[in-house]
Amino acid sequence: MSHHSPGYSLTVRLSYPDRPGFLGRITSTIGEANGLIGAVDVVDTRDNCIVRDVTISATNVEHGEDVVAALRSLPDVEILHVSDRVFLMHLGGKLEVKSRVPLKNRDDLSMAYTPGVARVCTAIHEDPESSFSLTIRRNTVAVVSDGSAVLGLGNIGPRAAMPVMEGKAVLFKEFGGVDAFPICLETQDTEEIIAIVKALAPTFGGVNLEDISAPRCVEIEQRLVSELEIPVFHDDQHGTAIVVLAALTNSLKVVGKTMESVRIVINGAGAAGAAIARLLLAAGANHIVVCDRSGAIHRQRGELTDLKQWIAENTNHDSAAGTLSDVLPEADVFVGVSAKDALKVDDVKSMADDAIVFALANPDPEITPEDAEPHVRVMATGRSDYPNQINNVLCFPGLFRGVLDVRARNINEPMKMAAAHAIASIITENELHAEYVVPSIFDRRVTAAVAEAVARTAIETGESRREQVPGLSAESES
Amino acid sequence: MSHHSPGYSLTVRLSYPDRPGFLGRITSTIGEANGLIGAVDVVDTRDNCIVRDVTISATNVEHGEDVVAALRSLPDVEILHVSDRVFLMHLGGKLEVKSRVPLKNRDDLSMAYTPGVARVCTAIHEDPESSFSLTIRRNTVAVVSDGSAVLGLGNIGPRAAMPVMEGKAVLFKEFGGVDAFPICLETQDTEEIIAIVKALAPTFGGVNLEDISAPRCVEIEQRLVSELEIPVFHDDQHGTAIVVLAALTNSLKVVGKTMESVRIVINGAGAAGAAIARLLLAAGANHIVVCDRSGAIHRQRGELTDLKQWIAENTNHDSAAGTLSDVLPEADVFVGVSAKDALKVDDVKSMADDAIVFALANPDPEITPEDAEPHVRVMATGRSDYPNQINNVLCFPGLFRGVLDVRARNINEPMKMAAAHAIASIITENELHAEYVVPSIFDRRVTAAVAEAVARTAIETGESRREQVPGLSAESES
Repeated sequence: MSHHSPGYSLTVRLSYPDRPGFLGRITSTIGEANGLIGAVDVVDTRDNCIVRDVTISATNVEHGEDVVAALRSLPDVEILHVSDRVFLMHLGGKLEVKSRVPLKNRDDLSMAYTPGVARVCTAIHEDPESSFSLTIRRNTVAVVSDGSAVLGLGNIGPRAAMPVMEGKAVLFKEFGGVDAFPICLETQDTEEIIAIVKALAPTFGGVNLEDISAPRCVEIEQRLVSELEIPVFHDDQHGTAIVVLAALTNSLKVVGKTMESVRIVINGAGAAGAAIARLLLAAGANHIVVCDRSGAIHRQRGELTDLKQWIAENTNHDSAAGTLSDVLPEADVFVGVSAKDALKVDDVKSMADDAIVFALANPDPEITPEDAEPHVRVMATGRSDYPNQINNVLCFPGLFRGVLDVRARNINEPMKMAAAHAIASIITENELHAEYVVPSIFDRRVTAAVAEAVARTAIETGESRREQVPGLSAESES
Repeated sequence: MSHHSPGYSLTVRLSYPDRPGFLGRITSTIGEANGLIGAVDVVDTRDNCIVRDVTISATNVEHGEDVVAALRSLPDVEILHVSDRVFLMHLGGKLEVKSRVPLKNRDDLSMAYTPGVARVCTAIHEDPESSFSLTIRRNTVAVVSDGSAVLGLGNIGPRAAMPVMEGKAVLFKEFGGVDAFPICLETQDTEEIIAIVKALAPTFGGVNLEDISAPRCVEIEQRLVSELEIPVFHDDQHGTAIVVLAALTNSLKVVGKTMESVRIVINGAGAAGAAIARLLLAAGANHIVVCDRSGAIHRQRGELTDLKQWIAENTNHDSAAGTLSDVLPEADVFVGVSAKDALKVDDVKSMADDAIVFALANPDPEITPEDAEPHVRVMATGRSDYPNQINNVLCFPGLFRGVLDVRARNINEPMKMAAAHAIASIITENELHAEYVVPSIFDRRVTAAVAEAVARTAIETGESRREQVPGLSAESES
């Protein structure tokens, strides 16, 4: 399960005598140390020496250090410099704030700033809704985190969370043309976070909550959704749920089963598991059992949190009890949002024919595709190095593109379902295959389809401030 | 006092028969209506008609409407469309958030986002100060307002304040290479604003407070300065004070007087007036009297606010009392941060020889240059259409450029004085002239000089996290 990744890549500058055989010895040393060679560039060739930059991908930090150590042990080869490409890329941060208007002379200044700007301010003061067209609210989303549940790293705080939120903003721009700005907060108090996001709302057209730990993330989102007039979306919950619904919709076509009939087991009863259950119910699923570490959640289990109480009341109508292994036999679908190794091969074998397994724990799934595939029909993970990557990037750029385009007040369940079906629809019946149930995140059709579906559904369900779907571009302002 | 400005400019699309004399009739109509013609473009010439776009600057909104009405009254001329260039420029807002890193394939993604980003997060978690090099804090400032005192418009609220804060961010980028992001808050509660800005601090390298009404702005800034480890700067106070000190330094050279000896009267005892007094005292001024609407502030006056109490205790050692007119005779310097027409010609006449008058009320100064100039040696205003424009743009881009470059914790008085002297120093002794005591805001040397002086002084006074002044560019990361 070790994969080379540019996420662990180094550029090593080394110098060696200009004699035959040296480069071969260097590349075989890297190969023997299991390093993957990328670019090899010549930097200098003076004084009978050759200086080269060799870019090497490793499988993790220690492995990278091992490869460099192996190179250091080569006689007559001198390591001049080792640079970490990921850190180099992050120097100075990943975002800039750029002007969309020229400012080269006094005329520009008098239109973008005083005195001209005063008329624009007055117009917004008289009609606050015009801030959605005359300010960056038109196209700008806040990516808000308190740093309490960042990736698999846990509660690392707001400063350390920034690179993730900046990366998210990069994705928003690259995939959806959405201007997103990271906001990492020095507080983990629920009420304070709610108050701050409410106070920030006049600046933004929407809010993407990110990497906030449960159960606070659920309360924070619910309160903000009900108290703000701009869309608030906790991506870790609903983004995941939407892409799961998209993948499941196509997987069911592959196996020839229906949403209404299949038995679904969700492992993981946190915010994401609950959001998946909620959206699958809305999509017509009738047979869902959600498990936490103690096993299946049902109405007779005591001492349930609010979230699990909701799960108990809305799923598992047969009150199935017991461990995951107890409830999995004859299930058609497994969705894991839990942890590495939570699913055993025997569990998978116990499932119904043509089983569908989504093992979404990151970076290590509940079961490896190698172990599961002999026994399932459709296998998906959160990883990019296997088929069927269930990745939120398929959803959030297009979703916010759509809500910004029609100035939606909210993201309701029909809009989420529309987003899921738009993602699924990118793959035609002819293309559909057990190893191709979700499109690639680099498939540029996805954002456009999601944006259009979300915008249209917002209008149809009365959540939009505009009555028409404009073009996809942020520039196409009427 | 009516000036044509592109801030009040219209583009009128009109159609007229292709016959001699029509264009002349149109342009003379615009001229008779006192409109100033800019570009004249041909749009179409079919069907024996000519369609043109004529850009016309007016002196204010009503005047623009009058010009259009005059054009409408012309026989055979049809007005097809009138567009307001300022509003067109503001559509969609004036800023975008752009990625500084490529994101074209999975390799890019694995470095800018997962899995590579996790190592950067971990590095910051282990050394929080590294967030100043590995995130946008390196070069990003928050421009924070509550919309309570916007331009001359007053308390128009956070939505309507956005265009000004966006414009400020445009200036930060254009003049200082600083990434600035506008934050307009839906609260005017002092404690809440303080708590919010403190919570936002992990995202930013500095905070520029803007257009917050007095006296709250003073308390908000003081509290944030003492409680945060990043620089907090209320531009309306200290930016103004720094540029006034720069202009006064050069003006004193013109008239051959010294800071220590001159008698200075400041009219306006708000946050800006107090900040000017404070900085001039630090620069060596010994004779300052500050007036508010009730006249000179002195220790015997009762019921003073905290700010005025500070003024009373630190200025006016002779306890001069009475109105502005009473204390102005024989003064060498008048600095107005008050209101239109606050200074009469007779007041100016009563000043000492070679009087220096800074009439900074906006948009209409305390006295017009036309009225004052016969009686003064140096005259400055806040306006761009007279010599000696005292404009904060001379200060804040370079100031924040400097503090970001050395990761300053604070902006102390020596740094403010260094900024003022850097602005003044742009004008050489040979160039110095009564009508050239401050450089043009488009003089590109200003930012570099201010940034270098502020960074050096931050290091010398122990306010910096770095011990060296790097190059000016945001890209020159070590």
